[in-house]
Amino acid sequence: MPSRRHLANAVRALSMDAVQQAKSGHPGAPMGMADIAQVLWCDYLNHNPQNPQWSNRDRFVLSNGHGSMLLYSLLHLTGYELPIEELKNFRQLHSKTPGHPEYGYAPGVETTTGPLGQGITNAVGMALGEKILAAQFNQGSFDIVNHYTYAFLGDGCLMEGISHEACSLAGTLGLGKLVAFWDDNGISIDGEVEAWFSDDTPARFEAYGWEVIADVNGHDPSEVSAAIAKAHEDSSRPTLICCKTTIGFGSPNKQGTEGCHGAPLGEDEIALTREALGWNHGPFEVPQDVYKGWNALQKGQAAEDAWNDKFAAYEKEYPKLAEEFKRRKANELPENWAQTCTQYINELQSNPAAVATRKASQNTLNAYAPALPELLGGSADLAGSNLTIHETSKGITAEDASGNYIYYGVREFGMSAMMNGLALYGGFTPYGATFLMFMEYARNAVRMASLMRLPAIFVYTHDSIGLGEDGPTHQPVEQLVALRATPNLDNWRPCDQVESAIAWKAAIERKDGPTTLIFTRQGLPQQARDEQQLKDAERGGYILVDCSGEPDLILIATGSEVHLATEAASILTDKGNAVRVVSMPSTDVFDRQSSEYKVSVLPTSVSKRVAVEALAKDTWYKYVGLNGAVVGMDSFGESAPAGELFKHFGITVDAIVETASMLS
Amino acid sequence: MPSRRHLANAVRALSMDAVQQAKSGHPGAPMGMADIAQVLWCDYLNHNPQNPQWSNRDRFVLSNGHGSMLLYSLLHLTGYELPIEELKNFRQLHSKTPGHPEYGYAPGVETTTGPLGQGITNAVGMALGEKILAAQFNQGSFDIVNHYTYAFLGDGCLMEGISHEACSLAGTLGLGKLVAFWDDNGISIDGEVEAWFSDDTPARFEAYGWEVIADVNGHDPSEVSAAIAKAHEDSSRPTLICCKTTIGFGSPNKQGTEGCHGAPLGEDEIALTREALGWNHGPFEVPQDVYKGWNALQKGQAAEDAWNDKFAAYEKEYPKLAEEFKRRKANELPENWAQTCTQYINELQSNPAAVATRKASQNTLNAYAPALPELLGGSADLAGSNLTIHETSKGITAEDASGNYIYYGVREFGMSAMMNGLALYGGFTPYGATFLMFMEYARNAVRMASLMRLPAIFVYTHDSIGLGEDGPTHQPVEQLVALRATPNLDNWRPCDQVESAIAWKAAIERKDGPTTLIFTRQGLPQQARDEQQLKDAERGGYILVDCSGEPDLILIATGSEVHLATEAASILTDKGNAVRVVSMPSTDVFDRQSSEYKVSVLPTSVSKRVAVEALAKDTWYKYVGLNGAVVGMDSFGESAPAGELFKHFGITVDAIVETASMLS
Repeated sequence: MPSRRHLANAVRALSMDAVQQAKSGHPGAPMGMADIAQVLWCDYLNHNPQNPQWSNRDRFVLSNGHGSMLLYSLLHLTGYELPIEELKNFRQLHSKTPGHPEYGYAPGVETTTGPLGQGITNAVGMALGEKILAAQFNQGSFDIVNHYTYAFLGDGCLMEGISHEACSLAGTLGLGKLVAFWDDNGISIDGEVEAWFSDDTPARFEAYGWEVIADVNGHDPSEVSAAIAKAHEDSSRPTLICCKTTIGFGSPNKQGTEGCHGAPLGEDEIALTREALGWNHGPFEVPQDVYKGWNALQKGQAAEDAWNDKFAAYEKEYPKLAEEFKRRKANELPENWAQTCTQYINELQSNPAAVATRKASQNTLNAYAPALPELLGGSADLAGSNLTIHETSKGITAEDASGNYIYYGVREFGMSAMMNGLALYGGFTPYGATFLMFMEYARNAVRMASLMRLPAIFVYTHDSIGLGEDGPTHQPVEQLVALRATPNLDNWRPCDQVESAIAWKAAIERKDGPTTLIFTRQGLPQQARDEQQLKDAERGGYILVDCSGEPDLILIATGSEVHLATEAASILTDKGNAVRVVSMPSTDVFDRQSSEYKVSVLPTSVSKRVAVEALAKDTWYKYVGLNGAVVGMDSFGESAPAGELFKHFGITVDAIVETASMLS
Repeated sequence: MPSRRHLANAVRALSMDAVQQAKSGHPGAPMGMADIAQVLWCDYLNHNPQNPQWSNRDRFVLSNGHGSMLLYSLLHLTGYELPIEELKNFRQLHSKTPGHPEYGYAPGVETTTGPLGQGITNAVGMALGEKILAAQFNQGSFDIVNHYTYAFLGDGCLMEGISHEACSLAGTLGLGKLVAFWDDNGISIDGEVEAWFSDDTPARFEAYGWEVIADVNGHDPSEVSAAIAKAHEDSSRPTLICCKTTIGFGSPNKQGTEGCHGAPLGEDEIALTREALGWNHGPFEVPQDVYKGWNALQKGQAAEDAWNDKFAAYEKEYPKLAEEFKRRKANELPENWAQTCTQYINELQSNPAAVATRKASQNTLNAYAPALPELLGGSADLAGSNLTIHETSKGITAEDASGNYIYYGVREFGMSAMMNGLALYGGFTPYGATFLMFMEYARNAVRMASLMRLPAIFVYTHDSIGLGEDGPTHQPVEQLVALRATPNLDNWRPCDQVESAIAWKAAIERKDGPTTLIFTRQGLPQQARDEQQLKDAERGGYILVDCSGEPDLILIATGSEVHLATEAASILTDKGNAVRVVSMPSTDVFDRQSSEYKVSVLPTSVSKRVAVEALAKDTWYKYVGLNGAVVGMDSFGESAPAGELFKHFGITVDAIVETASMLS
């Protein structure tokens, strides 16, 4: 049996070879963390390479995602379906081994990492998911949910603000089965970190309520192993294991310097490193005894088999819980779902009410949530404003994690990346809220949800100058433009309680990507719709008010401006125009409809078009063209009562009428 | 003389009255922090209400900006030009007292706050500005730059990740004249914070290398005063004073609860509070002795007079330094500026070279920076990639702050909001860099720079799939769409070394708003231009290649796609088309040109238009309309060599030719 060091050297060799072959990449972190990874993956990690989807596997997150070759090497060596050819194709088009670990490419990659700090935050979300699911499903000795979440992270992750948000909350929530390994190598891209990063990191994490195991030699397997064992002893606090390592360990001339962080070592240095490590094998060559030392197939299958037996017994004793567990893990909606929605939406349409859409959202949660225990809510300290707490909400605490609502605190970015972790974990449909403006604090996590196509629901209230007196720092203008430009993301800005319920339905039913639900602070009147219109509303854009025959003018509006458009249409009709009003709650969903449908809503022949939205105009030229016009915002907002602001910024019925009248 | 408590009660009364009158706002924080503010503003703050621009004033930042009435009360009471009528008009349109403190509205408001965590980060930037300017200008006993920066902050600021980034770096840089007051009232919007915020905050800040003064009773003036005096003693470390306070102090039924955080107390409770505080004056009534107790006019003028005398003596001894200090504080460019630029740009045009625009940016810095000591650079740990270090760069350290380059570490948001603080501080033109993708981490600070119209320069490199192997997490797609939709923000994406130098010139000359400079990783060929084109390039969009006579087709491109457009134009011309190529490095600047100019570049009669940009397409429909087309990105990127990606995503000469050929 090869030594631990020799096993670790396989990771080092594969990493430096793959980076060299790709002519780009990051050999330093994999070479520095190889010894830690060897201990964790060979002695502790509970996983089955044959079934990367096994629900009770330990989760492993490489938060310093630029060290992707570490993860690819581990997956390859332990027996995942990631053949050596894929490692040779590192960073090439259509390979399973992109420059950073991408979710959905190589089996065993639990999340996409690279944007620093978000991996550890995903891991916090996963560890929280484990704690909640365990509290909801484990019965007596049947701990069908019981595993660890491990994360590797570097100095970069620790400098990023999101690490503060996530790790602070992980401490408060007592995520005792989260174990993070800090790669304390003293080097970041600009060089030796002491000139820009001099935190006492152990003290910082102790201040968060973590167990901190300091001063571990990351190249001494016995120290690493002892630290992990100690971390496992304390189940009430997350653990940070501080591992002193040498970046690029083994490279005689580059180790310990930024020179090996983000560039190939070079052929000569690689040869010297091979020699120094005593690794006498060609590029991408791994001897059989080393493969054998790493192989986790048998152990992994045995572990899963044991769990399957346990689950079978659980199923016998708790058939309903087991069925529900399987349903939630399969991300399937309950049987009564379609009926629940249809009935609720029809009821709303027949019982018109003028409410703020944030209130309509809360009403919808009250209607839908009892049927959906997987709905896991939260807000970044704005529950009373976002109206995210419904009648069956129950807060999650360190002591009792059986609930369905997370008080995230003022941590928008942390919340959003934790939601991604929860969505990746499975068994949950996370929704989390803040003001639309403060989506910006969390923006890159929303993008990551979109990139990974996660079914997370981002609820954003106070969606325009309609929020009034809090002023321009709180009034969104350009935010929705950014969200709409984001691939894979569906955005809904409903105009009344009916569209709000339809938007929530779409968000919950969507399994291949995230959704934003954008709601008003202020009350909105309800629009009339027939049965066909109720169906068409699900297509993102539809004819809300029509003229007889072909229109000569189309008004397109969303959210709080739809009722302005219908009122303007009425005036313009009186003036002899043939006016159609299109409500477009989701441009993203509308854009996916058939050309036939789209042309039926927006006929090519009608070039007189006005879009109305109290936000930046950039989205709308795609629909109104150079001959049309947009009534919207050209500047930031102001602090004043909402009604005055709509007048001040010219987003009124009169302005729409005037704008439409000026089109030729 | 009224008691300290009675003086503080004036702030409480004004705050609750103004919130009540506005029917919205946040009385809790002003009432809780009034006693602290009384000690700081009456005994310590060095400021002159007659001249809010006095360069050596202490800076005061209300990071918990929702408590705006605290600041407005203080400004009013101490003698700033903020009459009581403005307080009565709190949160009304065109008042000087918007819901959150907005820079440029009331005199004495040093920065716009509200988005939590950014105020304290601005303050870190200001304190750093003081330290740098002092190191650059103070001579012997002439400490013409020597003052404190004070910040108030709440639990919300401390939960936000950016507080970690900024406070960590403040510790590393030894900003000993920064004094922050934590309003430790245990309440945030969702209620008692212990359920979501249980950090040991003193320990956390000690881990950052701060002096921490814990357990101060925020309602005991002697304790507060002793803490400030102690903070002043230690000039090597920033200080956090942890003040235990009662939110809504004085309100018998609401103090200490979230009920007084963000809503008016109500008439009845206000009456009870008046009684409890012994404040027997009507709404907005302040007795003369209380005004007298607060008035800072005389003391402030005396302080500035003394400084003016000192500066006069300094000017005599160091006339050149004094002149330079005045120039920088007045934000004026040096005399040789225009010549420096023109000469450099002309030289580049006559000496064509194919370089990456990030390299062209560094070359430009080498050309411009020696003439501009106010240029204060930095990067979020990507100096070698962003190429932000130029030949005259010198790093800032805790021990030597006389340089002009800040190693910000992996802290994009912290960097950007610190840059805003530096720009507000005056005497600097800050530039800071990261990859365009990671602008998203800092997005709301870029917005705040735009809202405040600060002359900050955000440098973003690696601006498309052209960055190659690092993959979709690092490849921008929709980011520039968001930036362009941001009011007051100028964005430049130059196509070669000449446009890069022109963009830098525009950014440095711009005084009424921020600029982003967006550069490639990969090399770009140089375009030919005559003298007129060189001038027109400054207008953001111009004819780069033209046909004879009226064009029948216009290609519009930016950055790395301009050369694809010119090559496609050549093929299309050969096929018999009359093709014009418009280079549009800045849509923002182009949009501000006269209609006449714009129509001369994009004649209304030409409806066959193709925009080409390897980014999300949303921006471009405004220019190409429904009859045109956009060659760009419809999805996220992939990990592969850049050349392959341009082919894979169809951003090629052939694709442009084909797209143009299909237009009718």
